[in-house]
Amino acid sequence: MKPIDDITAYMENLGRAARAASRLTAAASTAAKNAALLEMARQIRAQQDALLAANAADLAEARTNGLDAALIDRLTLTAKSVEAMAQGLEQVAQLPDPVGEITDLKRRPSGIQVGKMRVPLGVIGIIYEARPNVTADAAALCLKSGNAAILRGGKEALRANQAIAACVRTGLKAAGLPETAVQVIETTDRAAVGSLITMPEYVDVIVPRGGKGLIERISKEARVPVIKHLDGNCHVYVDEAADPEKALNIVDNAKTQRYGTCNTAESLLVARAVATTLLPRIAAMLTAKGVEIRGCAETRALLPNAKEATEQDWYEEYLAPIIAVKVVAGLDEAIEHINRYSSQHTEAIVSENYTHAMRFLREVDSSSVMVNASTRFADGFEYGLGAEIGISTDKIHARGPVGLDGLTSQKWIVLGNGEVRS
Amino acid sequence: MKPIDDITAYMENLGRAARAASRLTAAASTAAKNAALLEMARQIRAQQDALLAANAADLAEARTNGLDAALIDRLTLTAKSVEAMAQGLEQVAQLPDPVGEITDLKRRPSGIQVGKMRVPLGVIGIIYEARPNVTADAAALCLKSGNAAILRGGKEALRANQAIAACVRTGLKAAGLPETAVQVIETTDRAAVGSLITMPEYVDVIVPRGGKGLIERISKEARVPVIKHLDGNCHVYVDEAADPEKALNIVDNAKTQRYGTCNTAESLLVARAVATTLLPRIAAMLTAKGVEIRGCAETRALLPNAKEATEQDWYEEYLAPIIAVKVVAGLDEAIEHINRYSSQHTEAIVSENYTHAMRFLREVDSSSVMVNASTRFADGFEYGLGAEIGISTDKIHARGPVGLDGLTSQKWIVLGNGEVRS
Repeated sequence: MKPIDDITAYMENLGRAARAASRLTAAASTAAKNAALLEMARQIRAQQDALLAANAADLAEARTNGLDAALIDRLTLTAKSVEAMAQGLEQVAQLPDPVGEITDLKRRPSGIQVGKMRVPLGVIGIIYEARPNVTADAAALCLKSGNAAILRGGKEALRANQAIAACVRTGLKAAGLPETAVQVIETTDRAAVGSLITMPEYVDVIVPRGGKGLIERISKEARVPVIKHLDGNCHVYVDEAADPEKALNIVDNAKTQRYGTCNTAESLLVARAVATTLLPRIAAMLTAKGVEIRGCAETRALLPNAKEATEQDWYEEYLAPIIAVKVVAGLDEAIEHINRYSSQHTEAIVSENYTHAMRFLREVDSSSVMVNASTRFADGFEYGLGAEIGISTDKIHARGPVGLDGLTSQKWIVLGNGEVRS
Repeated sequence: MKPIDDITAYMENLGRAARAASRLTAAASTAAKNAALLEMARQIRAQQDALLAANAADLAEARTNGLDAALIDRLTLTAKSVEAMAQGLEQVAQLPDPVGEITDLKRRPSGIQVGKMRVPLGVIGIIYEARPNVTADAAALCLKSGNAAILRGGKEALRANQAIAACVRTGLKAAGLPETAVQVIETTDRAAVGSLITMPEYVDVIVPRGGKGLIERISKEARVPVIKHLDGNCHVYVDEAADPEKALNIVDNAKTQRYGTCNTAESLLVARAVATTLLPRIAAMLTAKGVEIRGCAETRALLPNAKEATEQDWYEEYLAPIIAVKVVAGLDEAIEHINRYSSQHTEAIVSENYTHAMRFLREVDSSSVMVNASTRFADGFEYGLGAEIGISTDKIHARGPVGLDGLTSQKWIVLGNGEVRS
């Protein structure tokens, strides 16, 4: 790796090249973008040995530096994960091209037709941590949506990321697209991130993918809009009109199917009217699976083995077999509690009452709101987006799972026949 | 006006109250919101004398402080403009309510139905300059879209803004909505703006309405997303396949209908193949109307009276009877020039060539792109939005004229029947 003396100048060069490339990716045909993606997949497969060797060198250094087992796990590539990366590129090639889609054309009294056209955002900066496969995923989604990308992976994965970047460049070149359409930052210097997030003239949006610390830091310092995903403190509310079997199944799935995902339920609210009958059954199911219950006073009166929940528990994203449980008066208190403590990711109500379901859908201010379904469904693939670049807990631009559409915006188009304004 | 000692504490109180009110405005019925708007209109009419008296005091102070005539003009209320304010409120009451609209519901293989629901952004901060009528306009648009608003008008209009704010509060109260749904900042201390744009916990988006200096400053310092409108350096490109009469009419209207609006054309590009025949006719028309032409070398060869355009002229938003004119090789150079120099507001091509029109629509990266129509159509009313809070030159969230929809976003909703993820 060549040393880079002037990080600011280096990043500005990347930015200028990305801006220029973004004009070409925006105008690129669907066929050219797909050809590039398929060639990238072929390259990834052909270069499997080189990718694994680069990854082995990254891993050796990570072990020398005493990185923890979870990080080593995220960093590790295998023959299987390399194949998955190639397949991911092929899947993105098969998604419909969002760019250029014209919608809502209507004729106005002046005679003009006004509508919207979906267009790329321009240049997207992606900042991520250990997983090298994000390099291929992010490159694919940005290119398919007509954007140029500047990628900054974790310093631990530098060699693997460079090896993947070489495959991406070969794919771009083979399809006649500029190799600078996807650039991977070649330095681990943190000043590069500082530049990337403060160059609004070259970068249109930043998508950070990683832990809460990374995302908070970036949001705080960015001068470019950030599509961010903070934590997932997701709730299930079991209403007094809940179907008991649905309640049990949904709480089970939402909490225990996977503990470490952002759409896992972390808090359970139960309407007082059904707490006596339902809460012991739910608790027995959770306890049998090794889930620790932290409850409010009423919960603990019903479940003597439950620990005491502190104020902090209502905010917590455990990502672990722990759940906070609160008995609430009913729908109003449930909505109030959720809008106060939730991270606005995903919440579900279990209820057979139409009005309760409709009010929950409307009044809960989260990116995904569900009736009688597990919070675990909050996912780009489950929603039919085909792929996702992340899940946004923001309110502006894109909320919830962000797919290709989230990497585009809509401009207005006017089709006239010589009309002028009077 | 009571003095405020601790601006930060004062603004945090406003923020907290707005956040609480936003829960109620988000859930408010269309009927309640409309009732509030109609009562505000009644109040504005009933309080006409009080509004004009407050405005007279503002104007007296402005004259004492030596403010310029243009500013005094923007500051001035009349019986007619007070009536227009009331009618504006009534018009917003008649617009369809965007909140709660469910679209794109589709069933997924898992059995769940996934769709989107339009929801308010939450709390909107509006920062504007002299015009007191913005207080009523902004209050109406924020409320109708289910948001709470914190308004900060120009210090010159403080008394009129407070008088309008009293009418707004009365309307809210009459409809059973919280008076804190629309709060007008009661201090002219600039620190209040500094607080408003750096409270992401209480404010979801900032919409600055005013000069470029104000907007640049706010964008630079904001920690909250900003929907901004910088300048309008709009272009008309007369293609070699242009219909000459349409070209003349469109250039005439785009440049001369009004000089001071952001959707007025500031630059004209003419394809070389038709420059000799068309440019002298266009120039004669413009010159007859007193428009100064600043041209490239080729333009000046055809129009000996034209001044020389400097590099800076291609960037300029004149807001005056001046136009920059450049002869270009054709479509490619026109698109390249526009994407380089434009402020990404509005651009138009005049052409009968289908492929040129389609390429211009797709490849020009501006918030409104037009074929055979005057740039002057870039406007919320002309586009059928009913009203606009501004015109965004951003790419994220909302581009171009921003109406009620631009003050909302979409969350995901899932309608299930007990489904869990496998």
